[in-house]
Amino acid sequence: MAPMAKGLTPQSQDFNTWYNEVVLQADLVDYGPVRGTMVIKPYGFALWEALQAELDRRFKATGHQNAYFPIFIPLSFLQKEAEHIEGFAPELAIVTQAGGDTLEEPVAVRPTSETIIGHMWSSWIRSYRDLPQLLNQWNNVVRWELRTKLLLRTTEFLWQEGHTAHATQEEAEAEAHQMAAIYAEVLREWCAIPGWQGLKTESEKFAGAVYTITYEAMMRDGKALQSCTSHYLGEHFARAFDIRFQDRDLQVKYVHTTSWGFSTRVLGALVMTHGDDKGLILPPRLAPIQVVIVPIYQAETKDQVLQRAQALNQELRQCGLRVHLDDRDQYSPGYKFNEWELKGVPFRLELGPKDLAANRGILVSRLGTKEALELQVLPKELPARLEAFQQTLYERAQQYAQAHTWPVEGFEEFKRHVEEGFVLAFHCGDPSCEAKIKEETSATIRCIPFEGVQEEGHCVYCGRPSAYGKRVVFGRSY
Amino acid sequence: MAPMAKGLTPQSQDFNTWYNEVVLQADLVDYGPVRGTMVIKPYGFALWEALQAELDRRFKATGHQNAYFPIFIPLSFLQKEAEHIEGFAPELAIVTQAGGDTLEEPVAVRPTSETIIGHMWSSWIRSYRDLPQLLNQWNNVVRWELRTKLLLRTTEFLWQEGHTAHATQEEAEAEAHQMAAIYAEVLREWCAIPGWQGLKTESEKFAGAVYTITYEAMMRDGKALQSCTSHYLGEHFARAFDIRFQDRDLQVKYVHTTSWGFSTRVLGALVMTHGDDKGLILPPRLAPIQVVIVPIYQAETKDQVLQRAQALNQELRQCGLRVHLDDRDQYSPGYKFNEWELKGVPFRLELGPKDLAANRGILVSRLGTKEALELQVLPKELPARLEAFQQTLYERAQQYAQAHTWPVEGFEEFKRHVEEGFVLAFHCGDPSCEAKIKEETSATIRCIPFEGVQEEGHCVYCGRPSAYGKRVVFGRSY
Repeated sequence: MAPMAKGLTPQSQDFNTWYNEVVLQADLVDYGPVRGTMVIKPYGFALWEALQAELDRRFKATGHQNAYFPIFIPLSFLQKEAEHIEGFAPELAIVTQAGGDTLEEPVAVRPTSETIIGHMWSSWIRSYRDLPQLLNQWNNVVRWELRTKLLLRTTEFLWQEGHTAHATQEEAEAEAHQMAAIYAEVLREWCAIPGWQGLKTESEKFAGAVYTITYEAMMRDGKALQSCTSHYLGEHFARAFDIRFQDRDLQVKYVHTTSWGFSTRVLGALVMTHGDDKGLILPPRLAPIQVVIVPIYQAETKDQVLQRAQALNQELRQCGLRVHLDDRDQYSPGYKFNEWELKGVPFRLELGPKDLAANRGILVSRLGTKEALELQVLPKELPARLEAFQQTLYERAQQYAQAHTWPVEGFEEFKRHVEEGFVLAFHCGDPSCEAKIKEETSATIRCIPFEGVQEEGHCVYCGRPSAYGKRVVFGRSY
Repeated sequence: MAPMAKGLTPQSQDFNTWYNEVVLQADLVDYGPVRGTMVIKPYGFALWEALQAELDRRFKATGHQNAYFPIFIPLSFLQKEAEHIEGFAPELAIVTQAGGDTLEEPVAVRPTSETIIGHMWSSWIRSYRDLPQLLNQWNNVVRWELRTKLLLRTTEFLWQEGHTAHATQEEAEAEAHQMAAIYAEVLREWCAIPGWQGLKTESEKFAGAVYTITYEAMMRDGKALQSCTSHYLGEHFARAFDIRFQDRDLQVKYVHTTSWGFSTRVLGALVMTHGDDKGLILPPRLAPIQVVIVPIYQAETKDQVLQRAQALNQELRQCGLRVHLDDRDQYSPGYKFNEWELKGVPFRLELGPKDLAANRGILVSRLGTKEALELQVLPKELPARLEAFQQTLYERAQQYAQAHTWPVEGFEEFKRHVEEGFVLAFHCGDPSCEAKIKEETSATIRCIPFEGVQEEGHCVYCGRPSAYGKRVVFGRSY
């Protein structure tokens, strides 16, 4: 399974082709046999496991517990919440035959689990003492999409979906915001992906939500990627599934629910936020391999170089660094350099006989810098280099996003800039006006950002007075 | 979600009813809305997470990597291996409609992933350098069973399925045995579940395997539970999916594959191996709560007792113990005792004002012993008590299994004993003879055990000379 090591199409020539080539050649994913499905290969899955570990730790630290709800949902459940079925019906996969028979009631393969969890809660929740319910599940969901794209939009994907039920609106809203903040922390500090957090408009919110908090990141082609969402669902699902409890005041009330999800599409965001014409660039905190050791030798120096390389590999691993020694004999050092650059490994350490004679190695950063370092300082210096790399990656992405974000006033300006990035503009708040902008430019309101000054103005499209009390973020999106 | 705390049906009166009551009332699982599906509740899922962590650590230590393959498999794939489709066809769930349309080729919801992984390997594997492939995935699978039972046989269940491909038969067989040994280690040392490891007969092996290694544990009603399996698949799937490689000798050869799985049914085995008329008894190494602190107070001593209980809770948690303080005010100590016994928590620590005055607590084991212990010795004594509990649980289960296992010679004796446990008997090796025994007694050959002396004799049913070179293990099974 050595990668093909073909040259990549440059990003500037065709970003989509570059993306597909990178995710396939870097061994993140492959196409599955059923249209729109994907295989997550070990290198890609290791990234997902790193994200899972970070998220799961934070979920548990905030009192959530993992559980598992069935993948099969009666169609009638999905129909109980009107907006929800309207949103998901076109994408459902439906099992009609099972166990050699035609099912009397066909079942949907879950596109998300609000309905089935709502159903269970209606029997589990009786009293305020049963609240809050703070649940999460790591699972697979199916949304039969027409146009698919590896990692970003596939028939089946992996994610976590958190579901909580609360006695009060205040508590449920605080939960939705808390989980959005946890997502933003992991995206910024672990994925090095900057972004705008804020509310979706009515047209763009989750089907069944009162409101949706999103995190919108800019990819290197200027397009937006919705990286995760957290929803305050109000009493919508509580009413649809009759989830009531007796409160301390003896009144019977509906619960307030939330849901929040973070999926494997973030792996696609990592690729498109940091990658370059050589391939992936992975944030050190998530990288399955942080440092690859490439020994350089001739026949007569082979044993000596490999021995030192193996010893160093052991030593650095014992320091808790994720180090890999590429001791494959059939590939040249140059071939290996290309391959590990393609795979986005933050640092490679070149060890040749001359370096070893001087008791040093050449440390080459995936971001381009190169330095000779004494071997004995590596256990101390590498962690610092990795942290600096992580920081640089975030700053680099933030600079890119800032350079491709424009406040605009008029629609001509809007159209020109939104081709290349994000636009901060006023909007009237009317969904039909939003729809017209989308039709003419394919741009949508990505979010009403939490940050940003309070400002009033006139809608960039129709000129009516602005809604939302501030500029909103427009962009074309994945 | 407080458990109902109804009395349980005694095991001796109706084991099946006892089982269903325990798994529901102890909050391990609940019934899902679609027939045969189940919800794994947080308390049950925490057990599964503990098992996942132990297994995953061992898989990685032996060089395996996690990956993810799609849940949807073209029906044509399943048909490529003749025995495989014969085994799985009756249980398939099939998606025929998706995205608002009828699918041209319906897709199966995976019952297991040998076929789809075989398909991917056929394009990934070219050379001996691409081998071995050592993959694992944690996922959900669907088998539409007619008779279902919570945790043991459900329409959908969670498991891990390992899949490996090797250049030689020798290496693949060693892998199948290595993984079976890892399973046995986790079952014995973490689940405290003794069992017979050995080979399945031809009639009982996995559909598509050359041979299947199983681990057969005895439940407290004398029935066997197949707790995990590891299969050597030979070239069967390699030939069906054309998975070939060029070896060092330049010859093009088929790979040899294995697969191995461990599922949530082991949670059911934990219940039925250790539980008693009061409910679950959990092995301390897996228990989500190892020690529950139950404070006992009157109005005037409440603050003082709770303060000490909270301090102790903190202190013991900092020692790495999984401790829970049950400070609910609405339940009596007696109610709490029953509830935590039902939930199988290994130890409860009762803290009352008199105990605290003497600076001690009453430690009550779920296995019945009771002792007064000075509070300051708890951080040192509890870990030792928990390990001893773990050991006792294993010995107790082993004693039960030994007392319900009989070597027999004649068929009358066989029929009498196999009603109550396992029988060690000779068998001729003829599948039709196996089938007759099953028809008359519902017992099957659970395995040809790895342990046991070499012995020859006459078939317990037909009297012909024995096969297998030793006695085999018969039992009725789940």
